Amino acid sequence: MPLSPVPDSRAVGLHLPHHDGSRRYVSDLAPRLGDVVDVLVRVPLEAEVDAVHARTAPDGESAFTPGRLVRTTATDAWWKVRLTCHNPVTNYRFLLVGGPTKYAWLNGTGVHHRDVPDASDFRLVAHDSPPPGWAEGSVVYQIFPDRFARSARADRREMPDWAIPAQWSDPVDTRPHAVAHQLYGGDLDGIIEHLDHLVALGVDVVYLTPFFPARSNHRYDAASFDQVDPILGGDRALQRLNKAAHERGLRVMGDFTTNHTGDAHEWFRTANGPGGKRTPERDYYIWEDGKYVAWLGVPSLPKLNHLNEGLRRRIFDEPRGVVRRWLARPGRREGLDGWRVDVANMTGRWRGTDVNHDVARQMRDSMARHAPDALLVGEHFHDYTPDVPGDGWHGVMNYSGFCKPVWNWIRDDAADPMTMGAPAPLPVLEAGAVVETMRDFTSRISWQSLVHSFNLVGSHDVTRLRTLVAHDPRLVEVAAGLLFTMPSLAMLTYGDEIGMEGDFGEDGRRAMPWDESAWDRGIHDIYRGLIAARRSSDALRRGGLRWVHADGDAIVFLRESPTETALVHVSRAAHESVRVPVRQLAGVETGRAAYGPAVRLGKRAVTLNASGPGVRIWTWAPTDGGAQPRRQGRRSGSEG
Amino acid sequence: MPLSPVPDSRAVGLHLPHHDGSRRYVSDLAPRLGDVVDVLVRVPLEAEVDAVHARTAPDGESAFTPGRLVRTTATDAWWKVRLTCHNPVTNYRFLLVGGPTKYAWLNGTGVHHRDVPDASDFRLVAHDSPPPGWAEGSVVYQIFPDRFARSARADRREMPDWAIPAQWSDPVDTRPHAVAHQLYGGDLDGIIEHLDHLVALGVDVVYLTPFFPARSNHRYDAASFDQVDPILGGDRALQRLNKAAHERGLRVMGDFTTNHTGDAHEWFRTANGPGGKRTPERDYYIWEDGKYVAWLGVPSLPKLNHLNEGLRRRIFDEPRGVVRRWLARPGRREGLDGWRVDVANMTGRWRGTDVNHDVARQMRDSMARHAPDALLVGEHFHDYTPDVPGDGWHGVMNYSGFCKPVWNWIRDDAADPMTMGAPAPLPVLEAGAVVETMRDFTSRISWQSLVHSFNLVGSHDVTRLRTLVAHDPRLVEVAAGLLFTMPSLAMLTYGDEIGMEGDFGEDGRRAMPWDESAWDRGIHDIYRGLIAARRSSDALRRGGLRWVHADGDAIVFLRESPTETALVHVSRAAHESVRVPVRQLAGVETGRAAYGPAVRLGKRAVTLNASGPGVRIWTWAPTDGGAQPRRQGRRSGSEG
Repeated sequence: MPLSPVPDSRAVGLHLPHHDGSRRYVSDLAPRLGDVVDVLVRVPLEAEVDAVHARTAPDGESAFTPGRLVRTTATDAWWKVRLTCHNPVTNYRFLLVGGPTKYAWLNGTGVHHRDVPDASDFRLVAHDSPPPGWAEGSVVYQIFPDRFARSARADRREMPDWAIPAQWSDPVDTRPHAVAHQLYGGDLDGIIEHLDHLVALGVDVVYLTPFFPARSNHRYDAASFDQVDPILGGDRALQRLNKAAHERGLRVMGDFTTNHTGDAHEWFRTANGPGGKRTPERDYYIWEDGKYVAWLGVPSLPKLNHLNEGLRRRIFDEPRGVVRRWLARPGRREGLDGWRVDVANMTGRWRGTDVNHDVARQMRDSMARHAPDALLVGEHFHDYTPDVPGDGWHGVMNYSGFCKPVWNWIRDDAADPMTMGAPAPLPVLEAGAVVETMRDFTSRISWQSLVHSFNLVGSHDVTRLRTLVAHDPRLVEVAAGLLFTMPSLAMLTYGDEIGMEGDFGEDGRRAMPWDESAWDRGIHDIYRGLIAARRSSDALRRGGLRWVHADGDAIVFLRESPTETALVHVSRAAHESVRVPVRQLAGVETGRAAYGPAVRLGKRAVTLNASGPGVRIWTWAPTDGGAQPRRQGRRSGSEG
Repeated sequence: MPLSPVPDSRAVGLHLPHHDGSRRYVSDLAPRLGDVVDVLVRVPLEAEVDAVHARTAPDGESAFTPGRLVRTTATDAWWKVRLTCHNPVTNYRFLLVGGPTKYAWLNGTGVHHRDVPDASDFRLVAHDSPPPGWAEGSVVYQIFPDRFARSARADRREMPDWAIPAQWSDPVDTRPHAVAHQLYGGDLDGIIEHLDHLVALGVDVVYLTPFFPARSNHRYDAASFDQVDPILGGDRALQRLNKAAHERGLRVMGDFTTNHTGDAHEWFRTANGPGGKRTPERDYYIWEDGKYVAWLGVPSLPKLNHLNEGLRRRIFDEPRGVVRRWLARPGRREGLDGWRVDVANMTGRWRGTDVNHDVARQMRDSMARHAPDALLVGEHFHDYTPDVPGDGWHGVMNYSGFCKPVWNWIRDDAADPMTMGAPAPLPVLEAGAVVETMRDFTSRISWQSLVHSFNLVGSHDVTRLRTLVAHDPRLVEVAAGLLFTMPSLAMLTYGDEIGMEGDFGEDGRRAMPWDESAWDRGIHDIYRGLIAARRSSDALRRGGLRWVHADGDAIVFLRESPTETALVHVSRAAHESVRVPVRQLAGVETGRAAYGPAVRLGKRAVTLNASGPGVRIWTWAPTDGGAQPRRQGRRSGSEG
């Protein structure tokens, strides 16, 4: 007997009231403490709501602010509430009073007829240094430097002692002795040679996994933070790459491990060497009974002690520290445009110590002072929501609230890949549960944090998408379709766009083939088409998110910016037509197909059908957009 | 049209797997860091589960620990997992693998077939100073000293200048000028004279709202923390009360406002007086533009500045400070047995400052050092869950996770009381939504915090229960039935037990009539009967909580201790019979009615019917209790 008929999904649809943290509903996405912000909520006329109140909790006490009816369209009443950012985080939700329902809450997971905790309240985050404006909606291309491309310069370099040299055409060797040491010799100049591939693909950001010297091909065991690995071309190569990327309008992000170093790191050698106990570096690490603590017990990865203020200063505050040394300063463009932080979830946590938030805040603050245009994104494989209050990492790698639910929907049931350390294969779920999982996680962080997170359907650490769906290019399109149409930055891993495969993280770190005959042209076209649609659409890059339909094999949603609406329809299989009333989609008849087949436009309804897996995007200028929130803040925010 | 068919409740029932934080399922309720704790989960055989894993997140990284099948009963497989308390809080949930469901999570809100955030994970809290053992299951009697009883000594005292004297038989005057100043002259010796009433009722703890000198009848505007208000009898009267209470086996708790003082407080007079700017006391308060910040803008209540370490030391650490001055030290019994903290939710919070958790931790730590047997409970009217991580307040006043959901179920729809500041009357809900609301809040704190919280269905701050249900004594019984049978301390307000009324908080602060002809005898019998049943039942005082049925007008649950099971059936109206299979209730046939009518015992099912509102409790010694967890910790915990 199945365990229970537990309802794991809530109703979605355009007949429901709606609010989200985007520009269409919020007057200031980057307010400061004390600012007044207008928030708008649309309530279907059918609900016959008499009054709308926003409930906040200034200084920890519940408070209600009445809303004002500001506009009525053919379908909705628009209510506006003026909220003051009294605290750094203002959580709010709406109480809808009257009508047949009498009493209903609207929060980030939808409509509730009973009291619910505050966790999924909407949030205004007032911070002196909001995330950089350029980031929202960007497409991020993750490069594992050893495997992306190898320049001719690489031939002149000597292989390090720990390396097992590989030819570019060799298969990945995932046996324990080889997995971290097989070295293909990819380098930063190799990346420069192929930047045009990224430009043609439509990428905005190149994100490099670590480039510091190390004793492994992944380089998460840094031996120094003061230089770029000579095998990659050294510091000058990174300067060349940054310059070449910036000239093409691309940004570049690095990868820094705050949690640990390698055991070959100069600090650790000092700390662990003769007389090490009397060095300042000794206390950079955690020692128990004379032994150092290592990440998950892996001896080559000694864990950093973030209770040590000297360490934190050295990393975050000193001019030659990791943060400032490598980032682009204002007015100069030779540096990086941000950091992705490895093992962000464990940083500063050990037994009775938890200074994780302090570390994130200090890194954010240091970046705000010295490189205010840089992005800070933390790695997080599971529930990131308590770790993203809005004053630390700008965002996270959204495995839990995006990658895994997408996998739940499209993964091949027979292939049964065991993923992310779980002792059982991920279940295959219906669209309702998939969307509810997404909402359950993403509703617990602010919209600002959400849109500065990385959505992804794969990475260098997990099964490759194409393998996960048993090579079905149509399901690759479905996953990529969600990736490039939903809010957040969209991250792909090098080679995803040409159909590279891999059973698990390391197996997927294959050498990128530059002989295009080895590429899956169909998949390449899918990626180029979806990214092009995203680049040309204000709604897809910066719009809100309104769920229209989520059931079984179909997911339908709107992205709404002040000037554009995008209707996205993704199906994992043939399904019965979904009909959406035309009057709920004001202006839809003037739309165009931005990707995939056109919608069927009827007099009363737009019909969305699918004979199999697929993606369609239909965009138009909304004709009911008159109830824009008016800016109330003292400043204009940081939109780029 | 109603807003949506949102599913607001999950399935409950004995056919579902179960775990809770009680002794039947957890080997050590008060472990220390590093201890190993066994946790048990029962899984119905019908679910055909092949494997059970516990998922934890040590140092912020997801980890799985396999369980071992330790016993099979007629209905359930019992699995055991050994968990190490690696961090102060070990959150865990179970992954059930196999059977038709394949993949299911069990956490504090039940069974989930999709991934869910960690918020409702079960929790082990390892703390050097766990809550006092005596508290669990206690019945707390809240006394508003001015209104409970007046001794002959009171006649000899002069009324203060601010007072509007009232005779004991006068009605409460709730007009603005009078509401805080009408003084009946109740005193602590009056309480002593009526302790036998409390003993006869079955009370364990007397909790006094503030006894410090003040300029109001409620005394939340303290003029000093160094003495007991002379109008109440002064310090000596409190000593007499403590002694008299302790002699009768009662505990006594005080009420301390960490958030603010009165403007007549000696500190505030110093700070605000001539030359005050140069006094240490000046910075005890928060000043903006030369004016002090007051609680919700009420001028008589200046808000304390908990960024000031001197203030915190003075309150929490000094021998004559508020915490230590009044509490019973080990081996001596003349002091108080705990503090209830007023406005705990706002303490230490103002604009960009939030040191709320620091304040709670410091108070807890100070009490642990100087009065380790004292209880610390914070007031919290809304979502307390982020404020109870387990190292600060032992528990909270559970308005959100108990009081309001009970009100949602039993309040009179026509009476429409506006409650707790909301701009709309609380909705009347079905049992499913009521139980789900309870689970939604209580699952987000540890079992340890839950059972050290105050459940309540009223207080000196809200509508009186009897008024809320439009004087229907049967609904009073229903609410009291839930109050005295569910986990947590159970708090009633003086006079609830005799049917006192009040439209709102202040209106309910009526003088307790000691002429028993004014008492509602039926209600008094209900309270005495329910408290007696609780006192005599290990299951009701210390058992776990397993939901059996929650639908419409009926709520049924089990409380399970290692030696006893209690079946509780509460109905708000006549309903169709609920049938529970006998084999799911091993030993039920040996039971007895501890309160209310007997259950109908059939060969295959126990039948629970109700022809109207009512409560029944059926208790027995379970015959399937062989899978007790074995203690693994290094110590024996703190059970009293």
